[in-house]
Amino acid sequence: MAEQKKVAVIMGSDSDLPVVKAAIDTCKEFGVPVEAHVMSAHRTPEQACSFAKEARANGFGAIIAAAGKAAHLAGVLAAHTTLPVIGIPVKSSTLDGLDALLATVQMPSGIPVATVAIDGAKNAALLAIQILAVSDPELAGKLDAMKRRMADEVIAKDRKLQEQL
Amino acid sequence: MAEQKKVAVIMGSDSDLPVVKAAIDTCKEFGVPVEAHVMSAHRTPEQACSFAKEARANGFGAIIAAAGKAAHLAGVLAAHTTLPVIGIPVKSSTLDGLDALLATVQMPSGIPVATVAIDGAKNAALLAIQILAVSDPELAGKLDAMKRRMADEVIAKDRKLQEQL
Amino acid sequence: MAEQKKVAVIMGSDSDLPVVKAAIDTCKEFGVPVEAHVMSAHRTPEQACSFAKEARANGFGAIIAAAGKAAHLAGVLAAHTTLPVIGIPVKSSTLDGLDALLATVQMPSGIPVATVAIDGAKNAALLAIQILAVSDPELAGKLDAMKRRMADEVIAKDRKLQEQL
Amino acid sequence: MAEQKKVAVIMGSDSDLPVVKAAIDTCKEFGVPVEAHVMSAHRTPEQACSFAKEARANGFGAIIAAAGKAAHLAGVLAAHTTLPVIGIPVKSSTLDGLDALLATVQMPSGIPVATVAIDGAKNAALLAIQILAVSDPELAGKLDAMKRRMADEVIAKDRKLQEQL
Amino acid sequence: MAEQKKVAVIMGSDSDLPVVKAAIDTCKEFGVPVEAHVMSAHRTPEQACSFAKEARANGFGAIIAAAGKAAHLAGVLAAHTTLPVIGIPVKSSTLDGLDALLATVQMPSGIPVATVAIDGAKNAALLAIQILAVSDPELAGKLDAMKRRMADEVIAKDRKLQEQL
Amino acid sequence: MAEQKKVAVIMGSDSDLPVVKAAIDTCKEFGVPVEAHVMSAHRTPEQACSFAKEARANGFGAIIAAAGKAAHLAGVLAAHTTLPVIGIPVKSSTLDGLDALLATVQMPSGIPVATVAIDGAKNAALLAIQILAVSDPELAGKLDAMKRRMADEVIAKDRKLQEQL
Amino acid sequence: MAEQKKVAVIMGSDSDLPVVKAAIDTCKEFGVPVEAHVMSAHRTPEQACSFAKEARANGFGAIIAAAGKAAHLAGVLAAHTTLPVIGIPVKSSTLDGLDALLATVQMPSGIPVATVAIDGAKNAALLAIQILAVSDPELAGKLDAMKRRMADEVIAKDRKLQEQL
Amino acid sequence: MAEQKKVAVIMGSDSDLPVVKAAIDTCKEFGVPVEAHVMSAHRTPEQACSFAKEARANGFGAIIAAAGKAAHLAGVLAAHTTLPVIGIPVKSSTLDGLDALLATVQMPSGIPVATVAIDGAKNAALLAIQILAVSDPELAGKLDAMKRRMADEVIAKDRKLQEQL
Repeated sequence: MAEQKKVAVIMGSDSDLPVVKAAIDTCKEFGVPVEAHVMSAHRTPEQACSFAKEARANGFGAIIAAAGKAAHLAGVLAAHTTLPVIGIPVKSSTLDGLDALLATVQMPSGIPVATVAIDGAKNAALLAIQILAVSDPELAGKLDAMKRRMADEVIAKDRKLQEQL
Repeated sequence: MAEQKKVAVIMGSDSDLPVVKAAIDTCKEFGVPVEAHVMSAHRTPEQACSFAKEARANGFGAIIAAAGKAAHLAGVLAAHTTLPVIGIPVKSSTLDGLDALLATVQMPSGIPVATVAIDGAKNAALLAIQILAVSDPELAGKLDAMKRRMADEVIAKDRKLQEQL
Repeated sequence: MAEQKKVAVIMGSDSDLPVVKAAIDTCKEFGVPVEAHVMSAHRTPEQACSFAKEARANGFGAIIAAAGKAAHLAGVLAAHTTLPVIGIPVKSSTLDGLDALLATVQMPSGIPVATVAIDGAKNAALLAIQILAVSDPELAGKLDAMKRRMADEVIAKDRKLQEQL
Repeated sequence: MAEQKKVAVIMGSDSDLPVVKAAIDTCKEFGVPVEAHVMSAHRTPEQACSFAKEARANGFGAIIAAAGKAAHLAGVLAAHTTLPVIGIPVKSSTLDGLDALLATVQMPSGIPVATVAIDGAKNAALLAIQILAVSDPELAGKLDAMKRRMADEVIAKDRKLQEQL
Repeated sequence: MAEQKKVAVIMGSDSDLPVVKAAIDTCKEFGVPVEAHVMSAHRTPEQACSFAKEARANGFGAIIAAAGKAAHLAGVLAAHTTLPVIGIPVKSSTLDGLDALLATVQMPSGIPVATVAIDGAKNAALLAIQILAVSDPELAGKLDAMKRRMADEVIAKDRKLQEQL
Repeated sequence: MAEQKKVAVIMGSDSDLPVVKAAIDTCKEFGVPVEAHVMSAHRTPEQACSFAKEARANGFGAIIAAAGKAAHLAGVLAAHTTLPVIGIPVKSSTLDGLDALLATVQMPSGIPVATVAIDGAKNAALLAIQILAVSDPELAGKLDAMKRRMADEVIAKDRKLQEQL
Repeated sequence: MAEQKKVAVIMGSDSDLPVVKAAIDTCKEFGVPVEAHVMSAHRTPEQACSFAKEARANGFGAIIAAAGKAAHLAGVLAAHTTLPVIGIPVKSSTLDGLDALLATVQMPSGIPVATVAIDGAKNAALLAIQILAVSDPELAGKLDAMKRRMADEVIAKDRKLQEQL
Repeated sequence: MAEQKKVAVIMGSDSDLPVVKAAIDTCKEFGVPVEAHVMSAHRTPEQACSFAKEARANGFGAIIAAAGKAAHLAGVLAAHTTLPVIGIPVKSSTLDGLDALLATVQMPSGIPVATVAIDGAKNAALLAIQILAVSDPELAGKLDAMKRRMADEVIAKDRKLQEQL
């Protein structure tokens, strides 16, 4: 049996940790091994590039990259790997996240970045888990269970609302 | 050995075919089986939902959805599957694709859509192939080869530029 | 005499209730029966679709749907009914409501959503009441009365301003 | 039996006719009586206000207003009637329709405008017909039929696509 | 000698007063008679139209109109007068003032609105005073004096900065 | 009797002439003397500043400035005069005029620019004429006549539309 | 040996000092002589122009200009010098800095402004220092050292993160 | 005497050449040695990084980088050099250049990119020349001459306009 692939969570700055934590936590909830790193496309490009180049060999199945402003991190990692790279645009103090969104999603032909919503760390992790689950029926089962749980929660909230009104 | 997973390419309208064709062609170039459908989140929601629900059982490994304007297609498919869903926001006659981008990428927590650039059909296919390649070393090898080929093309263009100038 | 049609107020998440409450309250002020539900286009798509499909038969005359981010709720409901669907784009933590606005209003041809202002819950209810009032002169009379009351309030505020200055 | 209500289609300038024509045509296809007028919120405000004030008494059930740029027409009509007013933001030579969209949809509390997509004239008419159909089962039946026809067309296009590929 | 023309300051809602107050105060500082009113393009259209129609005869030389969201007030006033109408787009709780700016400035050909910055009430008043000063050398002199005073203040601040650093 | 004040039309580049011509023509139609100049805030700042400084003494009553991109021309002229300065943001090859609009309208406190719509040259001239007409009843009469003519044209177009349909 | 060139930091208003201070501090950290001034493109245009005209002769090697809203300061300075002018767009109370960014960066051909991120004062100083360092190997060495220090800090933060998780 | 520094012009794709050519030509007009390359941040990251790392040692004084969409090229080069890096955001088929502008200019603290206008290749070259001219009085003299020539051209165009009108 193939070993369980890991998910990498790379953040451009440790100030992104409050946003990114939901991605780490979600991986852990699903029992998916996760490694988190602070690596900057601009300040430690070598570390970032090395990490990306060796990620597949090191047992990773997906890389999540979170960055704000002119968010190049996901793209720079994607330039050095053919693993799926998931980009989380992080909202910063100006432009309400639009800069990070466009800098993450508008990648040129040949180098995709799978972009999720601004500050969408939980969804980034879920997407990584969905990717691993393509060839892992057990993990797919966990995702299906979570989907049912989410539905049940909404239904419970609806019921509660009926009592409130 | 596991059977090769298929990629689905769903477009909201047959008018999206000129954009979406690059996704179909790219899958074929990589020898990845691909099925394309016209299905609308709003006009044939039942077909879309059924397709998504049964996609994993039907041998798909990733679903690509292309739609313009208030592009709900990718999100609606993602609501009915735990396979990775890749969204291509399609530029239409107003707002330069911004509407489709935001309607595709800004998904609520729990239901990710892996969004690529506006009209980024080729990258959507490459992302789908990367996803399949996580557990398929041969396919990963083809992606690596393409990456080298892309680099060689850029290097050749640079050389040509030197002669021109 | 035909029975008084009801208004449905559907919110994508119970966190939208503070915004949406004005819609419920306004319906009540006009004596229009209103039912509110938490239903998600992405987390409980089946509930949402069933509700929409049966809404006309269940005595509803208009459906109000409030959602944020990639706000698909109104569109998904509109896909399953030919009742007028009114969309309230809800502002969330990024992009100042622009994402929800575009994802609600830019519907493809064939499936309209009657969109009101971002967070415009009161207007959504007034629009629903206007719709019911098309064939209900008494309700139309109440709307006319409210219009006069609004005018009187502005006139009173103008008078008060004259005293202040 | 109540007389069939009419739909009014008001355009701010006759240059909007190419966009607006789809609204007129759609009403006619559904057998809904329609009247079209050129009336400007800024150039003929009196005509516009009079029309709106008397619209209910004159047998209209909904008013569609199409305007570009700082599109005030729908709002100005809505100020003088309690009939549902549907706004079509029209794209003009700058800003890709965003100006007309915001000027139409962001109405202040008390005066809703039911806004459809930029240049969304067909949907404006469908929305008007949905409004009339709330109390007109026959018209509702026609809308259901159109919905099925739309679905059939998409299904046919999907089938054709299968042959093409 | 011609009598001193007055400036009108019209706000769409009394909630705009904190923004608009700077316009009233600036007129008073220049000794220009000013009248302020709460009048709504949508809630009291008749009052607004009457005011505009009679403004020239009533001794006004310029009308300032402040409104937020789909800010139609300045345009509606301009429709009923040939006096210069100055629009102040007011920032509200969504879209950061962009909606009010576009709804104020993008007026169709024939009906100009002299638009100032979002929340730019002081500048609206200065523009009104500049307009009156075209034929009033004394007032022009006061504007020149203010310009020199502003320059002196900046120069003083620069000097103070030199001491700080 | 005071001499008729002139209107200045300054364009940042002679490539703006096709847009700006409507302003010149409109002044001529109203019999208002007009002078047009190519002067650049960035390439001939001295000429621009001198012109603005001496404009009042030279018999001008209003200055119209048209510029694209980072449109500083109106603001730079306004820095050197207390005459009303009217800014026309000119659409260029990128960003659809938004850059010129924001660079023209968002002036800091103390230095207003009366901004009209993107490419709104005719309205700029009408605003200049409205400004001169504040103290010139004959000119005001011409503006009133134009307003009636515009209304008549719309009414005629409406009549023609009735025949077409 | 050539004397060390100075950096000028010009702010449009003393309210920009909290943003701009990082630029002054960074120059000092690198031992680069810096002069800061409050000078306004609109309120003290003469001072600003004189400063720019004489800046090269006065020993400056680069000029940093910070301004918000319709930020003309950098452009106006650039009009009067051929020294590199670096623009810092400053975020103000509306539009989240987009106005200042576009008004700073979208300069017409012939007059460049080297624009950095919104509120990017530290980077403005680093860019100025990079410019001086082109012909100053010692300063270039300091920049290289800072780059290594930044990398070391990121690496240290990554290490710390590993302990935290 | 120090050897004349060179300017590098790097484009992300040879499709950017029509835009970028103005930068190459402008350098040549000023007699500044220029080298142009096609190098991609994503397709040939190694080439790009090596080039940047060795640029100072190889005699370059400034690097111009042109790229569209999620334009990372300038930032990636800046990560590997302390030479001034000038970014040209290139407009592509969607979003009118806004994506490239934000992805180029919004750089994180520590790694500046001197951004010019969208498609502003000529200004990028002028900025590079201004940078070299800081320590090169002869080059500064050429820039001054160009500034006078530009002024003369505008003055000539103004004169020609006077004849036309």
